[in-house]
Amino acid sequence: MNDSTDVQGRLAEKRFKLTRVGVKGVKKPIVVKRPWGERTLNATIDVFVDLPSDQKGSHMSRNVEVTGELVDKTVREPVEGLENLAASMCESLLERHEYASYSEVDIRSDYFLERESPERKKSLENYQIRAKGEGYRDGSIKKYIGATVIGWTTCPCAMEGVREKFKEKYFGISEEIEEMPVITHNQRNNTTLMMEVPPEKEVEVNDLINIIEDSLSSPTHEILKREDEAKAVIQAHKNPKFVEDVVRDILSKILKKYEDFSPSTHVEVKSESEESIHKHNAVAERVTTFEELRK
Amino acid sequence: MNDSTDVQGRLAEKRFKLTRVGVKGVKKPIVVKRPWGERTLNATIDVFVDLPSDQKGSHMSRNVEVTGELVDKTVREPVEGLENLAASMCESLLERHEYASYSEVDIRSDYFLERESPERKKSLENYQIRAKGEGYRDGSIKKYIGATVIGWTTCPCAMEGVREKFKEKYFGISEEIEEMPVITHNQRNNTTLMMEVPPEKEVEVNDLINIIEDSLSSPTHEILKREDEAKAVIQAHKNPKFVEDVVRDILSKILKKYEDFSPSTHVEVKSESEESIHKHNAVAERVTTFEELRK
Amino acid sequence: MNDSTDVQGRLAEKRFKLTRVGVKGVKKPIVVKRPWGERTLNATIDVFVDLPSDQKGSHMSRNVEVTGELVDKTVREPVEGLENLAASMCESLLERHEYASYSEVDIRSDYFLERESPERKKSLENYQIRAKGEGYRDGSIKKYIGATVIGWTTCPCAMEGVREKFKEKYFGISEEIEEMPVITHNQRNNTTLMMEVPPEKEVEVNDLINIIEDSLSSPTHEILKREDEAKAVIQAHKNPKFVEDVVRDILSKILKKYEDFSPSTHVEVKSESEESIHKHNAVAERVTTFEELRK
Amino acid sequence: MNDSTDVQGRLAEKRFKLTRVGVKGVKKPIVVKRPWGERTLNATIDVFVDLPSDQKGSHMSRNVEVTGELVDKTVREPVEGLENLAASMCESLLERHEYASYSEVDIRSDYFLERESPERKKSLENYQIRAKGEGYRDGSIKKYIGATVIGWTTCPCAMEGVREKFKEKYFGISEEIEEMPVITHNQRNNTTLMMEVPPEKEVEVNDLINIIEDSLSSPTHEILKREDEAKAVIQAHKNPKFVEDVVRDILSKILKKYEDFSPSTHVEVKSESEESIHKHNAVAERVTTFEELRK
Repeated sequence: MNDSTDVQGRLAEKRFKLTRVGVKGVKKPIVVKRPWGERTLNATIDVFVDLPSDQKGSHMSRNVEVTGELVDKTVREPVEGLENLAASMCESLLERHEYASYSEVDIRSDYFLERESPERKKSLENYQIRAKGEGYRDGSIKKYIGATVIGWTTCPCAMEGVREKFKEKYFGISEEIEEMPVITHNQRNNTTLMMEVPPEKEVEVNDLINIIEDSLSSPTHEILKREDEAKAVIQAHKNPKFVEDVVRDILSKILKKYEDFSPSTHVEVKSESEESIHKHNAVAERVTTFEELRK
Repeated sequence: MNDSTDVQGRLAEKRFKLTRVGVKGVKKPIVVKRPWGERTLNATIDVFVDLPSDQKGSHMSRNVEVTGELVDKTVREPVEGLENLAASMCESLLERHEYASYSEVDIRSDYFLERESPERKKSLENYQIRAKGEGYRDGSIKKYIGATVIGWTTCPCAMEGVREKFKEKYFGISEEIEEMPVITHNQRNNTTLMMEVPPEKEVEVNDLINIIEDSLSSPTHEILKREDEAKAVIQAHKNPKFVEDVVRDILSKILKKYEDFSPSTHVEVKSESEESIHKHNAVAERVTTFEELRK
Repeated sequence: MNDSTDVQGRLAEKRFKLTRVGVKGVKKPIVVKRPWGERTLNATIDVFVDLPSDQKGSHMSRNVEVTGELVDKTVREPVEGLENLAASMCESLLERHEYASYSEVDIRSDYFLERESPERKKSLENYQIRAKGEGYRDGSIKKYIGATVIGWTTCPCAMEGVREKFKEKYFGISEEIEEMPVITHNQRNNTTLMMEVPPEKEVEVNDLINIIEDSLSSPTHEILKREDEAKAVIQAHKNPKFVEDVVRDILSKILKKYEDFSPSTHVEVKSESEESIHKHNAVAERVTTFEELRK
Repeated sequence: MNDSTDVQGRLAEKRFKLTRVGVKGVKKPIVVKRPWGERTLNATIDVFVDLPSDQKGSHMSRNVEVTGELVDKTVREPVEGLENLAASMCESLLERHEYASYSEVDIRSDYFLERESPERKKSLENYQIRAKGEGYRDGSIKKYIGATVIGWTTCPCAMEGVREKFKEKYFGISEEIEEMPVITHNQRNNTTLMMEVPPEKEVEVNDLINIIEDSLSSPTHEILKREDEAKAVIQAHKNPKFVEDVVRDILSKILKKYEDFSPSTHVEVKSESEESIHKHNAVAERVTTFEELRK
């Protein structure tokens, strides 16, 4: 075909720059290599560039070509970390969209890690991981890696309310009850941590998953026989947490673990509990930089 | 336009009857009138008929016309029960699709009822209601009404496991602990009851909602101040329930409440708990008739 | 209960400020009054405040109380615009959370408007509306109103590609074909416009819906008989649009319609096409201020 | 723990049999081996058994154990077809739930196949596959395999309506226009085929995907450059299809391909188009047996 059919390349009538133009929901298998082995992830990918004010359309098929080429390469040459794949894609996008000044790639995937129950029974637990890249025309790239963990929160407030009532009612056991974990509402929680990986630094996504999971009242387990179940319940109730506590505990651990990361390092933490006691959810969130957190 | 453009009315090349053909996801406001007042529901509606083997296509715009006419009429003349609206739509569908031998209408909507917390604080709680109609060429109509309730279940098994462990540990309080509700995992649950309304009978959807809500460990409440929250937690833990228990309690109450309903009355109950202790859900279900239940 | 059970009010161990803490997914009916009449909306609401670094928890039941009180008031005294309800809720939240410096309310609802098909057949079309408020301790409030419209886009690029091929093949009709709308892929599209309402100004949400709908290749219609359907198809193909075009046309109309709005007025437009030709979606987006757009 | 904590094993108070009790949404990687190679699928699994009227609860952890053991075995010993894994799981479930008379397993997963565009450009296209098993105490097992394919439908009715109008308007080209594909609405469609695999027979899931894809107006493609896009549009418009046509074409191909399958073989086909011209979807469905289809 001749150039007259490059409708995207024509002059735009309404001259407005567009922040992001591209494709959303491309599904691809990706082979990832980490120190501990290889994994085939079934990923969902969004790919965007910006569009200058004078160009009618973005050549979106280039986004899918970049995705196809770089992702398919991972079958022969597994990529070390999804965030690095996202960063390479961002570079490649700016090469092919010569008119763009910005590129963005977002990759999400199910992920599995082996875990142990309190009784040391092994199971494969499911997590969600997410990587993001942002490319700029000056050659700089920002990359992010993160995870969402499904866990368990037990409410500290209801526990104190019940303890107070129990102290009155079960007078004889008032001392023991001070140390005994008492009933409260508890629920499924999902918590997301997403953080920037500064240049020259590395972040292992399994560490992020561990940090989130350790900040909940308890992890969840796929298989729990009776003995295991009782122990998990006791553990979760010895460790009551608001969503606010979950977010702060993660922030605290992140600061410590990555203490040499630059002040501008971006971090987002969000914890959402599917309250058993309500029909709505409880949410706590912090979006910030390491600089703010270190104050 | 002339008849040559009635592509649907042409002879089908591949002669297979189709079970259901129609439209899905039509959104409409519906005005419903019950003994206790009027409500405007924002409903989502599916409308199907069957298609004989020799006809190429179903005239789907007729489905939407029937929906529009009968639903819009409710603004001037509120309908008494969604299941009656579904039934009228089924009749009207068979009139307009002269080639169809079966029609089906499914209506879902958010719904609200005023409730009281343990401390008698009022709030408007959210439910889902659902109505279904099935029309047959011989003039018979089946109609169904149902509801989905979000509530709360506390696990009886983990509670017994923990009680056993606590008896050993807190030896001095072994007697009190026999009667004291002890910790367990608890979670958000959604339970659906859908039942046939036999000819000449009526079912008030609020009764179905009450039956479901009373069969859970506890209802959920939109607003709970501290005193309320403690009471709700104690109530839920005095009433531990498997999803199996929830389904059976509902079946038992239904049989009693509608004891004069015919043996062929169809009923479906499904209870699903978003297990706080696992990443997956627990489900129990019964699909049956009153005849089977009465055995 | 005594103060020892105010667990939220305790000192936080990990001293981090939280950006947003609150409840998500509260469902409520809201009565809205506009110049053209009253509507009962079934809304879904999120309500957040921030949390200072030294306080353990936010009193989330206050969020639901504010929601209940102000929303229930609309039954007796319908609110003029969801964005005004969001703003009042933001004010009330800062009064009750004396420790918060920021409050945020997000309200989404289904919405219906009467429309006409090309043949002037009336139907009630479904839209989504959304309002947002942000309250600050200094007394300032920001409010936003917006809508999501489902419509129709026809691809200009594929149309030119096909026209080129048809010119070769159907040589005798090469002149007519220059003006004839030719085949292309077309698809369902959903486009969202969200804009700030500056102090002392008003925005009618129906105008925003009109602006979006007029910027698509064609609106969608609930009911289309054959004559109507042909006309709608022709109209949509006379007006081929990329998602980029949709966003720019909306920006252009907004600038004109609200030309007296202050430079800092925030606006977001996002158009997403469920490409019939691909399994993934095409997206274009602009997030900006009136100042940037006027350059 | 002693037997007193086997709460599930206790006598039920309300004596109703339950149709299905189990776990829903267990996520697992599964390694599948087919003649053409191995694949790691990220699957979502539901696992149920029935429950006799006199037993309080089902031991759900056994469901997850069976899942874990049989699925993990696929890493060392890849399973030949998901439906065979589902069948083995059904057998194992009946062994472990000695009180159950029925077991059911449902497995869904993303899936990828290499495809070519009209210009022979290769891409990896995404599909959903699904397998189901049903086990009975008499030792019989039913197994099912199926797939959901996202494709493309172009409406034959609107095309005829437009052709009629174009004939009047573009009088000089009335002959050419009889053969020229003219504009119509077209849209993303998803179609599901699920069929029983009779004992001693095999069904290759790739064949089912091919059958569905060949029954749509056109497959969708991840990457289409301009020349490809024009060809795909022309191909889709030369092949206009109602959802009714899609379902019947699949039924016809299935009957031919599996002509030696027993009359009782169950088959379900459902095609749903996300109508570009409406906000709702169009659906056609057939649920039947080979016996009925052969009449």
